[in-house]
Amino acid sequence: MLQRPLIIGLDADDTLWHNEIHFRLTQARFNELLSPWADAPAVARHLAAVEHRNLGLYGYGAKGFTLSMMETALELSHAQVPATVLTEILSAGRALMRHPVEPLPGVADALARLAAVAPLVLITKGDLFHQESKLAASGLGQFFSGVEIVSEKTTETYQRAFSRHGVAPAQALMAGNSVRSDVLPALAAGCAAVLVPYPLVWAHEAADAPADHPRFRLVDSLAELADWLHSLPVAAA
Amino acid sequence: MLQRPLIIGLDADDTLWHNEIHFRLTQARFNELLSPWADAPAVARHLAAVEHRNLGLYGYGAKGFTLSMMETALELSHAQVPATVLTEILSAGRALMRHPVEPLPGVADALARLAAVAPLVLITKGDLFHQESKLAASGLGQFFSGVEIVSEKTTETYQRAFSRHGVAPAQALMAGNSVRSDVLPALAAGCAAVLVPYPLVWAHEAADAPADHPRFRLVDSLAELADWLHSLPVAAA
Repeated sequence: MLQRPLIIGLDADDTLWHNEIHFRLTQARFNELLSPWADAPAVARHLAAVEHRNLGLYGYGAKGFTLSMMETALELSHAQVPATVLTEILSAGRALMRHPVEPLPGVADALARLAAVAPLVLITKGDLFHQESKLAASGLGQFFSGVEIVSEKTTETYQRAFSRHGVAPAQALMAGNSVRSDVLPALAAGCAAVLVPYPLVWAHEAADAPADHPRFRLVDSLAELADWLHSLPVAAA
Repeated sequence: MLQRPLIIGLDADDTLWHNEIHFRLTQARFNELLSPWADAPAVARHLAAVEHRNLGLYGYGAKGFTLSMMETALELSHAQVPATVLTEILSAGRALMRHPVEPLPGVADALARLAAVAPLVLITKGDLFHQESKLAASGLGQFFSGVEIVSEKTTETYQRAFSRHGVAPAQALMAGNSVRSDVLPALAAGCAAVLVPYPLVWAHEAADAPADHPRFRLVDSLAELADWLHSLPVAAA
C-alpha cells in the first residue's frame, strides 16, 4: 500500500478485545467437569470433533459452543453424566456470553488514530446478538462508521462491505488476527490485508500468513498499524 | 398509501415460510419428554419464563430456544432428568434447525409480482447463520435486492435498512406477520406497514393491530398485497 486507504475494515474478537482466552477458560472448566470420563486432551479432541460436525448447523459463536459442550458431555459419558454437571455446563456457557469485554491494550487510542486516516468498519462473524452486545459493552462503537456481522468471512463479504461505502477493493484495507478469515479472503478480494496476531488462535482459524504477498503486512498492534498508515501520503482523488 | 412504494421490506419467518409451527411441534415433543415431572401447561409456562429470562443473553432463534429447553428440563426435574432425555432434547433442537423450509402457498408468485413494483428487501431477526441458511434453502433469494438480518426490529432498523437503498421512510412499505416487530416500529419510522397474519403467533410477538392508523393495512396474503400495490399509480419522481 503506497497511499492511505479510503476505508479500513477491522475484525473484532481478539483484534479489538479478548475472546479466545474466554473460550479457553470455559474449555478448561469443561475438561475438569468431564475428568471422571476422559482426560483433558481426549475431552478437547471430542469437543473439537462435535463442534466441527455442528458448524454447518450452528455456525460460529458461544451458543453453538455451549450446545456442543452439552452434546460432548452426553456422548463421552455414555449418557452417565449427572444432571448437576450439565447444569454447570449451561452456566459456564452463560458466563462465557456475559464475560466482560476488555479492549486490548491501547486499542481505543489506536482506533482514534485509525479513524483519522479513514472511516472504520467493524467486520466480524459469530452470533449477531452477542457481537452487537459486545460492541456496545466495549465502548468502542463510537469509532465505527459501519458494522457488518456476517456468518462467514469470504471474498464476497469484503467486496460487499467496502462497496457499500463506495470504496473499491484496491483502496480498502482489512486488519485482523486471523489469516484464514481476515487476511486471505481480503487479499483475494483485492484489498490490502494486515495481520495483527493474537497469542491464541482457534484451531479452526489456523493458517500460514502469506508473508510475501505484496498487499500483505504484519504488525504487532493496531497502534503500529496507525503509525504506518499515518506515514503514508493521502490517496489522490 | 396513494402511490406505489419505492422499496418493499418483507419479514421472513411466518411471512415467507412456516416457522412457528416448527417451534410448536418441538415444544409438543418437549412437553412429552418432561411429562414425568410436570403437565404440558406447566412445562410450557416454565419454558416461556426461562426463554424470557435468557432473551437478553441469547437473543432470538433456535439455538437459544434449545439452550432454554435444556435449562428448563434440568430445573423442572430438579436435576433428575436422565441424560437420555437431554440427548433427545438436543436432537430435537438440531431437527428444528434443520427443518425443511416450506414457502407459504403462492409466495413465490407473489414475490415475483411484488418485485415488479419495487425492489424487495428481506428484514428478519434471529440467528444470522440459521436465517441465511433458510433463505438459501427456500429458493426465494433471487427476488431480493437486499437482506438485513438484525437482532431486534426497531424504528431505527427500518430507517437504516431503507435509507441504505436511498429511499425515504414515507416511500417505503414493510410487510410481515408480527404487529410488534413488523408493523408498529415501521409505522413509527414513517413507513407504510402491512400485516399479513399467520395463524400462529408467538406469545412474545402478540400485540393489537393499529387498525385505524392511516398508513396501516391488513391483507390476507402477499398475493393480495401484490394486487393492491399493482392497483396504485407509480410514484411521481
